[in-house]
Amino acid sequence: MPTDIEIARAATLIPITEVAKNAGVPDDALIPYGKYKAKVDTALLPTTSNGKLILVTAVNPTPAGEGKTTTSVGLSDALHLIGKKTLLCLREPSLGPCFGVKGGGAGGGKSQVMPMDEINLHFTGDFHAITSAHNLLSAMVDNHIYWGNSLEIDLRRVTWRRVLDMNDRALRSIVGPLGGVSNGYPRETGFDITVASEIMAILCLASDLNDLQKRLGDIIIGYRRDKTPVFCRDVKADSSMTVLLKDAILPNLVQTLENRPAFLHGGPFANIAHGCNSVIATKTALRMADYVVTEAGFGADLGAEKFMDIKCRLAGLKPDAVVLVATVRALKMNGGVAKADLTKGENVDAVRAGSVNLRRHIENVKKFGITPTIAINHFYLDTQAELDVIVEMAKEFGAEAVICTHWAEGGAGAEELARIVAAKADAGAPDFNQLYPSDMKLADKITTIATEIYRAGSVTIPASVRSQLKQWEDMGYGHFPVCMAKTQYSFSTDPTALGAPENHDVAIREVRLSAGAGFVVAIAGEIMTMPGLPKVPSAEAIYLDENGQIEGLF
Amino acid sequence: MPTDIEIARAATLIPITEVAKNAGVPDDALIPYGKYKAKVDTALLPTTSNGKLILVTAVNPTPAGEGKTTTSVGLSDALHLIGKKTLLCLREPSLGPCFGVKGGGAGGGKSQVMPMDEINLHFTGDFHAITSAHNLLSAMVDNHIYWGNSLEIDLRRVTWRRVLDMNDRALRSIVGPLGGVSNGYPRETGFDITVASEIMAILCLASDLNDLQKRLGDIIIGYRRDKTPVFCRDVKADSSMTVLLKDAILPNLVQTLENRPAFLHGGPFANIAHGCNSVIATKTALRMADYVVTEAGFGADLGAEKFMDIKCRLAGLKPDAVVLVATVRALKMNGGVAKADLTKGENVDAVRAGSVNLRRHIENVKKFGITPTIAINHFYLDTQAELDVIVEMAKEFGAEAVICTHWAEGGAGAEELARIVAAKADAGAPDFNQLYPSDMKLADKITTIATEIYRAGSVTIPASVRSQLKQWEDMGYGHFPVCMAKTQYSFSTDPTALGAPENHDVAIREVRLSAGAGFVVAIAGEIMTMPGLPKVPSAEAIYLDENGQIEGLF
Repeated sequence: MPTDIEIARAATLIPITEVAKNAGVPDDALIPYGKYKAKVDTALLPTTSNGKLILVTAVNPTPAGEGKTTTSVGLSDALHLIGKKTLLCLREPSLGPCFGVKGGGAGGGKSQVMPMDEINLHFTGDFHAITSAHNLLSAMVDNHIYWGNSLEIDLRRVTWRRVLDMNDRALRSIVGPLGGVSNGYPRETGFDITVASEIMAILCLASDLNDLQKRLGDIIIGYRRDKTPVFCRDVKADSSMTVLLKDAILPNLVQTLENRPAFLHGGPFANIAHGCNSVIATKTALRMADYVVTEAGFGADLGAEKFMDIKCRLAGLKPDAVVLVATVRALKMNGGVAKADLTKGENVDAVRAGSVNLRRHIENVKKFGITPTIAINHFYLDTQAELDVIVEMAKEFGAEAVICTHWAEGGAGAEELARIVAAKADAGAPDFNQLYPSDMKLADKITTIATEIYRAGSVTIPASVRSQLKQWEDMGYGHFPVCMAKTQYSFSTDPTALGAPENHDVAIREVRLSAGAGFVVAIAGEIMTMPGLPKVPSAEAIYLDENGQIEGLF
Repeated sequence: MPTDIEIARAATLIPITEVAKNAGVPDDALIPYGKYKAKVDTALLPTTSNGKLILVTAVNPTPAGEGKTTTSVGLSDALHLIGKKTLLCLREPSLGPCFGVKGGGAGGGKSQVMPMDEINLHFTGDFHAITSAHNLLSAMVDNHIYWGNSLEIDLRRVTWRRVLDMNDRALRSIVGPLGGVSNGYPRETGFDITVASEIMAILCLASDLNDLQKRLGDIIIGYRRDKTPVFCRDVKADSSMTVLLKDAILPNLVQTLENRPAFLHGGPFANIAHGCNSVIATKTALRMADYVVTEAGFGADLGAEKFMDIKCRLAGLKPDAVVLVATVRALKMNGGVAKADLTKGENVDAVRAGSVNLRRHIENVKKFGITPTIAINHFYLDTQAELDVIVEMAKEFGAEAVICTHWAEGGAGAEELARIVAAKADAGAPDFNQLYPSDMKLADKITTIATEIYRAGSVTIPASVRSQLKQWEDMGYGHFPVCMAKTQYSFSTDPTALGAPENHDVAIREVRLSAGAGFVVAIAGEIMTMPGLPKVPSAEAIYLDENGQIEGLF
């Protein structure tokens, strides 16, 4: 079986100028970055449509993979095949993690976006721009303190850290500046990975450059002794940061293996942030295409919930249809099969047992007023009986499931899915609603998500956290949605509790305010915002071959 | 008088595709980055010439400015005007410092390279790529230690730090990783600015991707307890770093205000590195144009010496002509006038007194076997008598001086200079020689530069430094040239000793080995490798106006 990279290299890319023409992007709005990547100047794009928005989400991810990006690509290609004017909107992958564990983020098989090596590395420099803007603010905060600290920032309460797009655990916790008078005042601080930057979330939620600058200005960089906040605009960094982000805010255009257009733009963490591509890309796509296919990070418990309650709420968007991706392998693992045993032949009972996970997600999506369509992402080891049981179970749970072979066949393998989803999107989602109203108390929002979506039996919010939430409500942040940070592997906070756990306790350890992005992060469990490298990083095996092609990256 | 940015905005850029065509770059070798920037694939470029190399250097820089980049641009434009097929090769400016002190690095007046805002910010991402490659190695070093340190790296002797393209003094000296078992072993370390990275010097000296990877592998990241070196290739980072730099190694093509082609590529520090644009860009230009104009950082004592003894030696290049830039204002300051008094009318005596600085540089350049042509970069406050005295003094010192008005008039203001320099370049420099042979002892190389170029009366090299140099000779690095790191403001190590100081002592405080770049750095005085921001950073006043144009950057 050919690998993703072999399939990708066998494909024929068309110039990005042609992709743009096919997508209705006029010449003067196209800003090329090499021959196969471009940014589009949204101000120069005509409004030619009022598209339907299709969200692709999934059951809980497992090490076996569920193929959300792959299915998004396949569905988009299939919509083109059945004559629908479609635009695909995905997130950009992060550079750093590529050097840790093998595997990029550009789909798989015959459903990939291209050129995958450039997309996975520097791409068009968006993440580098975010890193620069973030660290400019960090430098200006320490510089303000250095020159006399007239804002009276409490050195112990500087919350703004630094970022790098690199898996570097040695930077998680540092003390600096050392070296005496000429360097500054030592304090504890550290680095996160760039995708965890609040600026990444801001870039993905901003409606335009003005809104971007306003949100950057709203960032809280720390607090005074009296616990009043100090904002980014207080250190006068917001306008320069906007300058650094003026190109990064423009959506990136690439193509699928079938030469269909795709916007890849933004990639915020799906735990401490909302895990969706940019609002600007999504809204731009909606005015250029009749169908827009997008995805949200992790399983539907995190991804779909945040898509609905954060992205759609803050951007005034509304999904017209939802696709829920499931695989035989992922349901088997949710049904108790170990990863090593996945290749040991048919196991219909395990698929049936694991379908409780699928059921729970179907029920959850319905709570937003939309019945999802189940896309079964076919894997070559799946047996017909295993596939049939998912179709049968989905029907029992009130949803339609379609076996899709886009991994092996590209868009042609997802045409049935495309027809069903297009019809559903055409009908729209008149009953769409968010899970909670904006004016609900912050603690109640947390409790609502935990009980309604995670099916917690109890929610533990310590007094200190409640008091913090109350303080933020008093400061005017009470209308913010809540961004839950918990494990993606389980509905519960225990990553080993697969299937459909219930009556568990969701304990909120900590809350953080992303005042610029516009949400409150509630952390249940340990969340790592700077990954490390494994003992043998994939970097050791990445190289340029004699033809200048990258090997070992995927 | 219009500002640089006003002049730049009044200019009409032509598409980079046209610039490329005019420069003889075939379509398939052009990799556009937006409409006005591109990279060129050097492998796809035809060899159509065997160009003459013209180095632009200068008297010692002063706060009044000497206009080396401006003169390089003006000379290149003038060569085009007199019918010479010319390519300009400059360094890329660094992003971080733009947010500290006003002023970018793209020339001035009517002699600028464009688009100046993009050139001064993210440009084509080369510096971001260098930052990523550098910090990948840093992460892999700490990761190696974390997972058991089988290479037995001495934690106290890790010499490889981290970099950011940001003026952030708070990162100069830090302790980390803290946080216990899961983060690693605490040690002292810190960050330099990206241009100070050895990888920047390597990128600028590499002949191709294979040589780049070999040099990256040669980097010494630290030492064992027995003081044996540990190399980048020992932690297996070199091939991944090469992948991260595969686009950065390609020269960037932009245009002057007169729409003439310019390569802007690489920008190593001119103190702890050699301060010249990339060898790849220079060599590529030499096979495409009949005349190649390039510059080297700081005054001729540092810039020209390193150009000759490091870049030319390591790359097998040879200058055919040298232009030495002088200004009335710079010579006045070298003649004892304070900056505040520069606008107080004519002062011929001060120019005459300061011309000792010019004389010294002329004598020094002659030591390389080339008589420089003096370009007097005209400023509107200069009087004819002041200009005349420079011409007269230059003649007395054995060189021809030309008054140039390219700042005010563009290439047309440097046509006489162009004619003279083209004739000199055509004649070539048969007597060119480096200052010292490669097989001279390292300590003797230091002494030679200090006495011959700086005119030191004595050179103090502590026993510890001599022993270190001896050790490197024993390790096989004795043939390396020496890269001097000292103040750029004076021939001596005292930045206030203007004019032509002699009989001073040059004290070598420290030496560093850049084993990948291929030189030994000798540090005389304090060298700052991570700048700080001033009390009121220029970042506070940088913003996007209502038309999306950057204000306050220049």
